[in-house]
Amino acid sequence: MVTFRKRGSKVGLEPGTLVHIGEKKVEKVKIKIVVYDSEKIVEKELDSIDECIPFNDQPGTNFWLNVDGLDKIEVIEKIGSCFNIHPLTLEDILNTGQRPKMEDYESYVYTVLKMMILDKEKDEIIIDQISIIFGCNYIISFQEREVDVFSPLRERLKNPASHLRKNGVDYLAYCLIDAVIDNYFLILEHFGDEIEEFEDQLLIRSSPETIKVIQRYRRDMITLRKSLWPLRELISGMQRIESEIIKDTTRIYLRDIYDHTIQVIDSVEDYRDILSSMVDIYLSSLSNKMNDIMKVLTVIATIFIPLTFVAGVYGMNFENMPELHWRWGYPTVMLFMALLGTTMFAYFKKKKWV
Amino acid sequence: MVTFRKRGSKVGLEPGTLVHIGEKKVEKVKIKIVVYDSEKIVEKELDSIDECIPFNDQPGTNFWLNVDGLDKIEVIEKIGSCFNIHPLTLEDILNTGQRPKMEDYESYVYTVLKMMILDKEKDEIIIDQISIIFGCNYIISFQEREVDVFSPLRERLKNPASHLRKNGVDYLAYCLIDAVIDNYFLILEHFGDEIEEFEDQLLIRSSPETIKVIQRYRRDMITLRKSLWPLRELISGMQRIESEIIKDTTRIYLRDIYDHTIQVIDSVEDYRDILSSMVDIYLSSLSNKMNDIMKVLTVIATIFIPLTFVAGVYGMNFENMPELHWRWGYPTVMLFMALLGTTMFAYFKKKKWV
Amino acid sequence: MVTFRKRGSKVGLEPGTLVHIGEKKVEKVKIKIVVYDSEKIVEKELDSIDECIPFNDQPGTNFWLNVDGLDKIEVIEKIGSCFNIHPLTLEDILNTGQRPKMEDYESYVYTVLKMMILDKEKDEIIIDQISIIFGCNYIISFQEREVDVFSPLRERLKNPASHLRKNGVDYLAYCLIDAVIDNYFLILEHFGDEIEEFEDQLLIRSSPETIKVIQRYRRDMITLRKSLWPLRELISGMQRIESEIIKDTTRIYLRDIYDHTIQVIDSVEDYRDILSSMVDIYLSSLSNKMNDIMKVLTVIATIFIPLTFVAGVYGMNFENMPELHWRWGYPTVMLFMALLGTTMFAYFKKKKWV
Amino acid sequence: MVTFRKRGSKVGLEPGTLVHIGEKKVEKVKIKIVVYDSEKIVEKELDSIDECIPFNDQPGTNFWLNVDGLDKIEVIEKIGSCFNIHPLTLEDILNTGQRPKMEDYESYVYTVLKMMILDKEKDEIIIDQISIIFGCNYIISFQEREVDVFSPLRERLKNPASHLRKNGVDYLAYCLIDAVIDNYFLILEHFGDEIEEFEDQLLIRSSPETIKVIQRYRRDMITLRKSLWPLRELISGMQRIESEIIKDTTRIYLRDIYDHTIQVIDSVEDYRDILSSMVDIYLSSLSNKMNDIMKVLTVIATIFIPLTFVAGVYGMNFENMPELHWRWGYPTVMLFMALLGTTMFAYFKKKKWV
Amino acid sequence: MVTFRKRGSKVGLEPGTLVHIGEKKVEKVKIKIVVYDSEKIVEKELDSIDECIPFNDQPGTNFWLNVDGLDKIEVIEKIGSCFNIHPLTLEDILNTGQRPKMEDYESYVYTVLKMMILDKEKDEIIIDQISIIFGCNYIISFQEREVDVFSPLRERLKNPASHLRKNGVDYLAYCLIDAVIDNYFLILEHFGDEIEEFEDQLLIRSSPETIKVIQRYRRDMITLRKSLWPLRELISGMQRIESEIIKDTTRIYLRDIYDHTIQVIDSVEDYRDILSSMVDIYLSSLSNKMNDIMKVLTVIATIFIPLTFVAGVYGMNFENMPELHWRWGYPTVMLFMALLGTTMFAYFKKKKWV
Repeated sequence: MVTFRKRGSKVGLEPGTLVHIGEKKVEKVKIKIVVYDSEKIVEKELDSIDECIPFNDQPGTNFWLNVDGLDKIEVIEKIGSCFNIHPLTLEDILNTGQRPKMEDYESYVYTVLKMMILDKEKDEIIIDQISIIFGCNYIISFQEREVDVFSPLRERLKNPASHLRKNGVDYLAYCLIDAVIDNYFLILEHFGDEIEEFEDQLLIRSSPETIKVIQRYRRDMITLRKSLWPLRELISGMQRIESEIIKDTTRIYLRDIYDHTIQVIDSVEDYRDILSSMVDIYLSSLSNKMNDIMKVLTVIATIFIPLTFVAGVYGMNFENMPELHWRWGYPTVMLFMALLGTTMFAYFKKKKWV
Repeated sequence: MVTFRKRGSKVGLEPGTLVHIGEKKVEKVKIKIVVYDSEKIVEKELDSIDECIPFNDQPGTNFWLNVDGLDKIEVIEKIGSCFNIHPLTLEDILNTGQRPKMEDYESYVYTVLKMMILDKEKDEIIIDQISIIFGCNYIISFQEREVDVFSPLRERLKNPASHLRKNGVDYLAYCLIDAVIDNYFLILEHFGDEIEEFEDQLLIRSSPETIKVIQRYRRDMITLRKSLWPLRELISGMQRIESEIIKDTTRIYLRDIYDHTIQVIDSVEDYRDILSSMVDIYLSSLSNKMNDIMKVLTVIATIFIPLTFVAGVYGMNFENMPELHWRWGYPTVMLFMALLGTTMFAYFKKKKWV
Repeated sequence: MVTFRKRGSKVGLEPGTLVHIGEKKVEKVKIKIVVYDSEKIVEKELDSIDECIPFNDQPGTNFWLNVDGLDKIEVIEKIGSCFNIHPLTLEDILNTGQRPKMEDYESYVYTVLKMMILDKEKDEIIIDQISIIFGCNYIISFQEREVDVFSPLRERLKNPASHLRKNGVDYLAYCLIDAVIDNYFLILEHFGDEIEEFEDQLLIRSSPETIKVIQRYRRDMITLRKSLWPLRELISGMQRIESEIIKDTTRIYLRDIYDHTIQVIDSVEDYRDILSSMVDIYLSSLSNKMNDIMKVLTVIATIFIPLTFVAGVYGMNFENMPELHWRWGYPTVMLFMALLGTTMFAYFKKKKWV
Repeated sequence: MVTFRKRGSKVGLEPGTLVHIGEKKVEKVKIKIVVYDSEKIVEKELDSIDECIPFNDQPGTNFWLNVDGLDKIEVIEKIGSCFNIHPLTLEDILNTGQRPKMEDYESYVYTVLKMMILDKEKDEIIIDQISIIFGCNYIISFQEREVDVFSPLRERLKNPASHLRKNGVDYLAYCLIDAVIDNYFLILEHFGDEIEEFEDQLLIRSSPETIKVIQRYRRDMITLRKSLWPLRELISGMQRIESEIIKDTTRIYLRDIYDHTIQVIDSVEDYRDILSSMVDIYLSSLSNKMNDIMKVLTVIATIFIPLTFVAGVYGMNFENMPELHWRWGYPTVMLFMALLGTTMFAYFKKKKWV
Repeated sequence: MVTFRKRGSKVGLEPGTLVHIGEKKVEKVKIKIVVYDSEKIVEKELDSIDECIPFNDQPGTNFWLNVDGLDKIEVIEKIGSCFNIHPLTLEDILNTGQRPKMEDYESYVYTVLKMMILDKEKDEIIIDQISIIFGCNYIISFQEREVDVFSPLRERLKNPASHLRKNGVDYLAYCLIDAVIDNYFLILEHFGDEIEEFEDQLLIRSSPETIKVIQRYRRDMITLRKSLWPLRELISGMQRIESEIIKDTTRIYLRDIYDHTIQVIDSVEDYRDILSSMVDIYLSSLSNKMNDIMKVLTVIATIFIPLTFVAGVYGMNFENMPELHWRWGYPTVMLFMALLGTTMFAYFKKKKWV
């Protein structure tokens, strides 16, 4: 069962005030650094942010800093002053209630994404805000919790023949975003299977729970759409950036993920359509049920009420009722009633009510 | 319970006629002035608008005039002539039924906003129209009533290290708008909690009141949307202004609140979606209830009508009814009826109608 | 009760053929003329259109010709030849089934508007087509009937201090349009009050009439929207006209009425939303009523059908029914039946069905 | 009753293959020619297309060729080679399942329209595809069947004072399109009257047929919209053509029919709105009927079931039932039952169920 | 019955990794080559991709390579390196879950389409992804399975008089896309017939299956729309390509298929409208049925419950009931009951309930 946790809010503070809004998700902030060019690659886990400074000065090498956990504000602040990052960017990194967006601060590009991770065991989807800052030769990524969705990328980086090694950090940024969007496909496939199975069941039998499940899926689709719509703008915004940070060779790849995003959005809209038509199915199943109940009542009442009336007639105490004294009076009436009942039953049988 | 008060109207008057449209909300018009630059700050409450004139002539300082209460038209007129403000602007300030908008009158920028203040005690939302006029070094804000939503800003202004002190009045204008939008987040959070709780209850049990509550929330969302949609245009309009009044450093901040506005609008649209799907839930709950009622009726009628018929048969007065004279006639019929009733009950039990 | 009268049509005639399409609404065509500049003003009612020619030649003065009634085609034709007006314009003036629009014929601007006048006594809204033609120093307005909606304007014109006297005819044209839009506010307020009151009643009690009233309001909103949507284009079109006919000072005022138009359109859309959600309320009220009816039936049937069965049992004529001969048989059965009935009643009471 | 006939299809053929798709509608292809300038006019019916060639070479004269019937492909082919028409155009002329469109082939403009002709006797709407090709001084129109919708135009052409004679073929093309659009007004008026009448009846009484009629109107509106939406693009496309074929004086007229098209589209959308709200009315009328039926049942059952129970009680055969032996027992019980029944009836009367 | 098979997914792989996503559909990859110019044509089936290289070098000739089956990745790779194709293109060819799209890689244009093939025997629609790459003089088409939809084209190519022979590969590409779109017309016609027939049945009689069929058609329309919407962008994108690959003469033809696409999309939207209005019809048919059932019950109960009461009265055992001893008591009561019953029946007859 998918749950989307509530988030805190930050109202009334001065813009630029650094406060981490969101639950604490990791005990310790974990900083990993990868320095690479087409020939060599160094990977290291840092204890303090200061250790990364020497790496930053090597010209011609690319530099990937990954920060897991946003609870230590001083780390974010230090990175901010180190890489000359605008206070609004730092604020946005810490406020995990952001809408996905892309902002071009000339010296760097700032991107916020929503990573959706399907936890199949708990049947839960975790939403993790991922911030990516990249300039000419550095890229910094921030995650709320330590879910290593980027480890396949890290593996690919180690392969010297990989495209990643031959291209700059803009290509790495594209790969990070691509990894995020790939996860949406997984989530949607999971939803698609669930909804399809649910619809198959609905067509057989419905219960008062049905509408609650539909409502829950609808809400999930709203949550997904909320993360996806801005993604489209984000990527098309990146394609239009006119700085050197994004090379032309990378732009072709951006076109590709733009396409993927549209595909995911289309699917979400389709599921919304399907879910809303499932409400029609559900409501019509209720009406059908009602019709079935009423048919039972009508058949029983229509057969027995006239019979009861006949019996009532011969229960009257008039002195002068000749039928009562006939020898075959009782059997005749019983036969008549049996005939009447059978005829009525046959009539309903013909009308397919029974 | 949220209420949106009705407003008066002004039809048939000459454009530019200054009449305050709206209820009287403060006894006295209160004028506060803050004069500041990066080094010093002076704050003062004025008795008459004339006292502000000396401050207006100090070059290099910024100047914030705050007017609470719109009932004294002569005050507004004086400010108008003092700062050379277009009659249409003055008219719009006084007519509190404005749609949020931004207008660029070359020498100044005029902005109308709707501040929504949640009065938790009365469970009421007050809508207050806020007008902001800002030129190169002055900013004038008008409020309908004395709700000091800007006091945190005033506190921050006193801090010499604050961004506010280092930047011009355009940054202060941004901060005022930001404070207004922040309040929308609070309002929406409040609605979100209420609607969620209401939906949880709805899924358990519904009453004829339910549809009225949904209708009320729908109306509230329409009111919110009405204030929010124009806000989007307002901010994007400000970003496109090509005068010196808005500095480039401030434009980045405007991008940020544009983003916030979109986020609020998205949420309102989502709540509208959710509310309209709650109508489906409610209607289906009515159908379910009906089905339950009909099941009770059908079960009772189907069990007892045939039994009554049997009793009726043996109440007939035919002379020649041998069963009536059998020794075990009565117990046999009673047993038969018990069996019939039990079978029918079991049948309904199996069909889950009982 | 609002009524929108049907209009005639003109199909298959040569474009430019002058035929008045619409009912006759005034007995006589009434022509009023106002000649004014910032210093003097002359107002006169004309018997024939020829009388206005001398006024037309006075340079530096503004000239307002108002024609009430479109039945005398020769008057329209004469004005057309006098002021050099395109045949299509003349055709549009006479065909009162026009959609509001603005057309720029270089030497003049042609505007068609729908004036809505609320006749509170008859509870009727009259739609009157108003055509405004204005060039550099003349303005000609045509009305279908003699409803003097422009008399306040005429009064203001007489005041030498008025903006109207200081500005050209483009400002007067703006004031005419403003007067028309102001009337929409009145109409909408009237509708708003009615709909609100109606909704309050609906929440208490509904009748089969309810849906008819909703339908009527829906149709009214469609009619309003039909007049309002084109108004938006009309005004934004006027703002973009690149001729000298519209001065820059007037453009600021056009921005203002554009805003008003948007506000009215928003309200109409909101009422449409509210009306369509009222259908939900109405349908749910029908279901609730049905549930109430069924509850009554079920309660009565469920209590008395078993009791009738018991009575039926002791009405059987078996010889060997020992209970019948017991001394306390009758009271015992009566007590049992009373108990059974009370229990069932209590059960329904608990279920809130009674 | 409106019928829209099905059309054939042409799939898998080489683009440019000339096959007439559609039913045969005329026995013979009829070719009429009109040659005119401001001074003289010649009208002639041709036996063979070759006869028109001499007319084509007269400079300074306009030339209108009208072809009724598309069954003789060789005629179309000949015209194609004569006037140098692109094979795709010829294909489109013959394929009568076209969507209305305008295509600019530099040397000529090609327009496809759907003429709707109301056959009041058969209560049927015939859709006829009309293709218009016009170049600098020639215009060729093709119709599927011989419905002389253009005869009023031909009459007007004969009038030497007519605009048609003074303007070029582009003005004639405008008049042809105008004639087509005028017919839409007639059709819509007819629909409008029918729908209005139908709605009036619906508000009084509904039958299971009602929904079928609504559905039929809905389909009709879809068919109309299908022909109308592309018309809008068609005309705005013609306005933007930057060749000499369309003169500036004609552009003003195009603006006028653009306006008419919008007006027709608006009406269709309005009828769609009204029809979909009629479904609500119908569904609510079904619920109201159900409520009425249930009220009858409930009233009858609630009055008589308790009375029957009372009668049942005194039909019991207990030995010791003192009431049975009272002198006034019978009248007392009868009176009690009458009272009970009357009370219940009064209760339902008060509840307005009777 | 239409089925849309599920597809596999490819998540987490490096962009550019070549993996065939989709079911295996052909045993062997089949490569056909056609080399043609306006004078000669050679057609050949290749065993290995290397055999095509000599043909590629002939200047002035056009070259069409058709690959059926995507299972041999090495074939795709070889073609990729041979014709210098971007890795992303190759990836897209193999991933058969693509959305239709067009991409301009300067040296070639890449197009993905969804071919829908109606298998009338199995009553199934097969979706086949078709990729078309075309440069200046070569065109390569990839299909998932060996359905020879292009054989009519191949036949036309053999005709030296065909347009295909006179034009370049861009015209051939247009013809391929045209063939794909033509198939959509066939599919839609099939759906149209089915839906129309289904609607006719629905108007006569509905069953609980009805809603399932509607739901299935709705899903089919969603699938169709999903393939069609991007097609529109695809073609308009091709029209805007500013390279020599697409000649101006071909652009006119693209305009034509753009038009066809719009026509298909319009039809799909219309069917969606019609299907959703069919749900209304279905729901109203359920209500009508319910009304019919309730009428039967009400008529029976209303006639017999009062009669049973009368019989009950005369079944009472009071000593002093004079009617019981009247000579004509019994016939009188019977007559009275017959009269009562007949009257009620007549009443229902009049109310059209019987």
